Amino acid sequence: MPQMMKAAVFVEPGRIALDDKPVPEIGPLDALLRVTTTTICGTDVHILKGEYPVRRGLTVGHEPVGVIEKLGSAVRGYREGQRAIAGAITPSGYSNASLAGFHAQDGAGTAHGWKPIGGWRFGNTIDGCQAEYVLVPDAMANLAPIPDGLSDEQVLMCPDIMSTGFAGAESGGVRIGDTVAVFAQGPIGLCATVGARLMGATKIIGVEAVPERAEMAQRLGADHVVNFRTTDVVSEILRLTDGRGVDVSIEALGTQATFEAALRALRPGGTLSSLGVYSEDLRIPLGAFAAGLGDHRIVTSLCPGGKERMRRLMDAIQSGRADLKGLVTHRFGLEQIEAAYDLFSHQRDGVLKVAITP
Amino acid sequence: MPQMMKAAVFVEPGRIALDDKPVPEIGPLDALLRVTTTTICGTDVHILKGEYPVRRGLTVGHEPVGVIEKLGSAVRGYREGQRAIAGAITPSGYSNASLAGFHAQDGAGTAHGWKPIGGWRFGNTIDGCQAEYVLVPDAMANLAPIPDGLSDEQVLMCPDIMSTGFAGAESGGVRIGDTVAVFAQGPIGLCATVGARLMGATKIIGVEAVPERAEMAQRLGADHVVNFRTTDVVSEILRLTDGRGVDVSIEALGTQATFEAALRALRPGGTLSSLGVYSEDLRIPLGAFAAGLGDHRIVTSLCPGGKERMRRLMDAIQSGRADLKGLVTHRFGLEQIEAAYDLFSHQRDGVLKVAITP
Amino acid sequence: MPQMMKAAVFVEPGRIALDDKPVPEIGPLDALLRVTTTTICGTDVHILKGEYPVRRGLTVGHEPVGVIEKLGSAVRGYREGQRAIAGAITPSGYSNASLAGFHAQDGAGTAHGWKPIGGWRFGNTIDGCQAEYVLVPDAMANLAPIPDGLSDEQVLMCPDIMSTGFAGAESGGVRIGDTVAVFAQGPIGLCATVGARLMGATKIIGVEAVPERAEMAQRLGADHVVNFRTTDVVSEILRLTDGRGVDVSIEALGTQATFEAALRALRPGGTLSSLGVYSEDLRIPLGAFAAGLGDHRIVTSLCPGGKERMRRLMDAIQSGRADLKGLVTHRFGLEQIEAAYDLFSHQRDGVLKVAITP
Amino acid sequence: MPQMMKAAVFVEPGRIALDDKPVPEIGPLDALLRVTTTTICGTDVHILKGEYPVRRGLTVGHEPVGVIEKLGSAVRGYREGQRAIAGAITPSGYSNASLAGFHAQDGAGTAHGWKPIGGWRFGNTIDGCQAEYVLVPDAMANLAPIPDGLSDEQVLMCPDIMSTGFAGAESGGVRIGDTVAVFAQGPIGLCATVGARLMGATKIIGVEAVPERAEMAQRLGADHVVNFRTTDVVSEILRLTDGRGVDVSIEALGTQATFEAALRALRPGGTLSSLGVYSEDLRIPLGAFAAGLGDHRIVTSLCPGGKERMRRLMDAIQSGRADLKGLVTHRFGLEQIEAAYDLFSHQRDGVLKVAITP
Repeated sequence: MPQMMKAAVFVEPGRIALDDKPVPEIGPLDALLRVTTTTICGTDVHILKGEYPVRRGLTVGHEPVGVIEKLGSAVRGYREGQRAIAGAITPSGYSNASLAGFHAQDGAGTAHGWKPIGGWRFGNTIDGCQAEYVLVPDAMANLAPIPDGLSDEQVLMCPDIMSTGFAGAESGGVRIGDTVAVFAQGPIGLCATVGARLMGATKIIGVEAVPERAEMAQRLGADHVVNFRTTDVVSEILRLTDGRGVDVSIEALGTQATFEAALRALRPGGTLSSLGVYSEDLRIPLGAFAAGLGDHRIVTSLCPGGKERMRRLMDAIQSGRADLKGLVTHRFGLEQIEAAYDLFSHQRDGVLKVAITP
Repeated sequence: MPQMMKAAVFVEPGRIALDDKPVPEIGPLDALLRVTTTTICGTDVHILKGEYPVRRGLTVGHEPVGVIEKLGSAVRGYREGQRAIAGAITPSGYSNASLAGFHAQDGAGTAHGWKPIGGWRFGNTIDGCQAEYVLVPDAMANLAPIPDGLSDEQVLMCPDIMSTGFAGAESGGVRIGDTVAVFAQGPIGLCATVGARLMGATKIIGVEAVPERAEMAQRLGADHVVNFRTTDVVSEILRLTDGRGVDVSIEALGTQATFEAALRALRPGGTLSSLGVYSEDLRIPLGAFAAGLGDHRIVTSLCPGGKERMRRLMDAIQSGRADLKGLVTHRFGLEQIEAAYDLFSHQRDGVLKVAITP
Repeated sequence: MPQMMKAAVFVEPGRIALDDKPVPEIGPLDALLRVTTTTICGTDVHILKGEYPVRRGLTVGHEPVGVIEKLGSAVRGYREGQRAIAGAITPSGYSNASLAGFHAQDGAGTAHGWKPIGGWRFGNTIDGCQAEYVLVPDAMANLAPIPDGLSDEQVLMCPDIMSTGFAGAESGGVRIGDTVAVFAQGPIGLCATVGARLMGATKIIGVEAVPERAEMAQRLGADHVVNFRTTDVVSEILRLTDGRGVDVSIEALGTQATFEAALRALRPGGTLSSLGVYSEDLRIPLGAFAAGLGDHRIVTSLCPGGKERMRRLMDAIQSGRADLKGLVTHRFGLEQIEAAYDLFSHQRDGVLKVAITP
Repeated sequence: MPQMMKAAVFVEPGRIALDDKPVPEIGPLDALLRVTTTTICGTDVHILKGEYPVRRGLTVGHEPVGVIEKLGSAVRGYREGQRAIAGAITPSGYSNASLAGFHAQDGAGTAHGWKPIGGWRFGNTIDGCQAEYVLVPDAMANLAPIPDGLSDEQVLMCPDIMSTGFAGAESGGVRIGDTVAVFAQGPIGLCATVGARLMGATKIIGVEAVPERAEMAQRLGADHVVNFRTTDVVSEILRLTDGRGVDVSIEALGTQATFEAALRALRPGGTLSSLGVYSEDLRIPLGAFAAGLGDHRIVTSLCPGGKERMRRLMDAIQSGRADLKGLVTHRFGLEQIEAAYDLFSHQRDGVLKVAITP
């Protein structure tokens, strides 16, 4: 009889509930991670609401921090008992997409080796990590040992929030001396702000209306925060940039309004770096797009994964360059996860991120 | 009394007519070019129709081939009588945008040095070259001597069509082994096909319904031409790429339909390189965009200008790498320019490009 | 008792000989490839001469074309009997170096995941493919099925020569309109010439003294070939570029003389792309280097490997963009491999590459 | 009779002296800047010693801060009385090199538009700024207005030291999570340290033996400083990087020893970004270079100039991201410039940079 564990599963739109499931059995390339801390992502809320479809009964969650419980027979280079994280995106390393550097579009199972969003497996196409144990696929590409001295909460943002937010700045090609606007200062946007700061932006304009988030944005590196409820955001950004517009704008919410404002705020030749998960068709206004003649770039990024990415992000934590512990505002046991979803999905009590400990 | 010349001017929407105007007087940084050959661009047709607004009385045209008639007092490095071209885009070289490499977004006259589409001056913000003479601004940045042995018609595509079309492949980042789809095989799209071929694309799929253009596409480097009137283009492209989609798709028309198909045809992580001049808002379908998670890039390019760009393009002609003479299908004297517009704007008689000789 | 096979092994400096060895036993991630065609590389000659040290008894050779004989228990996505190649460099896909895109510096076995030249395993750190069978490590990252209709000889250059030569152009960042000099037109240099041509170089200057190689260079895309025995190469290159120098020079031999000439031939701001395997310290002359102020770049490339690279190279063959069959000048059975080494290492009879068939 | 001014001129090797010279007369594209603050560069010391040859009688110095005294007849966009700086490198904007983005290799006066180091004119090919007045050539490309509220000393590092030092990090391609070693912590090396920090390096290792410089390095962002007199630098760097080596090493001195150590300290696939002005041939040790197979890159950078670069650097000052005022350790009047050279060239009294006020 298989060993059983607690896991948060998608039951139906509107309901994620704790359930008993067997501890996963691992194949030769996998590892079993005992989860010590995990968290809830905005994407999980999309799943909860049925806006992003997953199969019923799937364990959700894609941000694991834990201890290696067991290694597949072909896995080398790790030892059981080691503390490790895995990214939200778990590339195979060997798909054509992965070998080409597009780890998030991994299509290891397909004929040609590419699949949109194929690198996102945890809580999407395989069981996730809001559970006592999680199977980490292609463990050698994905398990990243946690450096000594870093706590679970210190590295909890690495698997997704920090990797995604930083990617917003990276894909935007932020350079020393750039002016950058970051639309929305939720957890992803805040990390984009940190990323833009780390890459040398000399003027960072956050867009946010929630006071706690605006304040956190300034603490983490924004030079200005514009309240979109009280201010015309694009005009204010133009004013703050002497009429030129920003070099890079980062969209970190996933709505038409923020996408459009991010485009309007750009200087000619600027880059819109999009991180949001959209839920409807987007419109590109002709004028904002200079009829296609503005040398604009629109780039999208899915959270970079793999152990090397995780190693580098943990380095940024360990060196003190990025201190994201403040993002964890609330803590729950796994058994309270339904309450955690309730708090997080309603953005109550100034919540940014929750820590869940099985 | 000023010397007079013939020039094609924008009279009102629907009417471009030949008129008598004074030969331009030049300032210290300018040159006067006696135009020996020029041509009509799709953008000129937009101007003719009133879809792209310019002031009444403006001389139109932005693709000059000619002979240096006179040099401004501060211009060094040229001699009168020299054959030369200038790009459709005439960067100053000294604006902030130009110094940053965004020559087409030159804002030399503005406080901050950036202006959307500011590098496009000929036939847009200053008098153009469908005339006997044209003033070339910032001559030292823009006059490119024609190598010995190249005829006017051989270099006639350099100022705009070739520079823009090649930019579609360049901004798309085409690499050896890439599969590329080029949407529309008009003059710009044909040059994008040539550009993609020159950069090492190993499968080039043109999209075109006009038989002469489809045939020319294959002559210039397309491996396949898909007729959008008889075939579902996206399905056919997926079939031709074993279900993967193309690495780069180049939009060379400026419509929602081509933009959207160009996006749908991409592999995950692919790049849509847009060249079209759009005339309405664009829509990005959610699914084609993978909800923003597909690591897609959308890049737009305005025709690169400046004498170094022209030099390189003429090298591509001189070396035989690109032979675009076949694009000139019809020839007119300047006095027949209204007939030339009539032919070109209605795409009659298999016209691709016309040569106009003052 | 293990099944036995013939294999060319390194016996001692000066001697590679055919021997009987057991057919390799494969692990869960490996594949066994029955070699149908292979070839000898210049690096193998370095090994033969003892200039590049490998352990005695090692099977040499790193350019396999064959048929999948057996798949490891964890390998998915292939079937036995399938024709396939593997690159000379066999990245793991999951090392830190590989995940970062530096597949050739793979350090899968090391603590930190990086190792100089670690991706080169065949005939270097594990048994190679000048044998009847070869074990392909990390098969899912490395086995590339051969498209229907391509012969062994057509794809024989893909594993090393073509991948390396093309990398010379790619790492050099060749762009449309560039002038490129390629120093030495042996197999690698010829492929660099093809690569430069494929990427849009409009003037390609080969440097070579052997008439057959000079002639082949012109057939494959060189516009000029300069004979270094009869001509001052740098002066001639400057003459051919109107005194400017080349945008990119590719070193494809591995000597001080070619390295130095490649540097001297560069325009300010140019790139020296080095492919050679050097056997002594290099000297950078102060003047050629503009005392460090010339915005020069020197980049080195080790043969890119992995199945996605191989797929793209075979696409270049299949599309007809690159036709390298002419490089195979001589053919031998595996049992004649010592004679093949003798011919190849002495560059007799106009040999470029040999095909070896077990 | 021309107005006269004081100027520091190169008299002969070993002697730079104050002299009376006419205030420069300006042409249509120039501006006359009244110098309010300038400084001495290591390159000036090379000139003083005769190691870098300039013509006798030339006014030296290339780091001007001042007030616009007069504008050439064709200069637009400025007003007399405006405070401004110009970079050490003064590109024309219109040369082929400049239009291609290689502003420092500007060859405006040459047939083909490229010239090694041609963008460096001040105190090299035209009179420099250690004087009461300096002619700024191609003023529209080079004059950068000083933002309100910034003092002369705050922007004094922009024209050369900061631009060069930052270029070390930029050309090195420093990314978030990189480990970077900076060889020598003189003014340029210190700015490279600041640049690496601004671009997101998470471990910065300075190499320096002078205690004041080591201390300043740590204040400006180095995590470790290694004393090359007491420690084996390469071993220590390998130890600090767990045996991997650094992603980027920046050479900021100009000697064989630092160049070589910078190469040895690299991880496979790493980049050596060289800033030093060398005075003899360089040697690349075979082993450190992995025989040419290490995917190494060696890039050199000459100080980026032009007004857009200056604007961005002043933004970095104004935003507080970089505070380099501490680099000015000593102050002199122009009339004391010989004493300033004496102090600076002998690196006495912990001098880093001197401020000279005419």
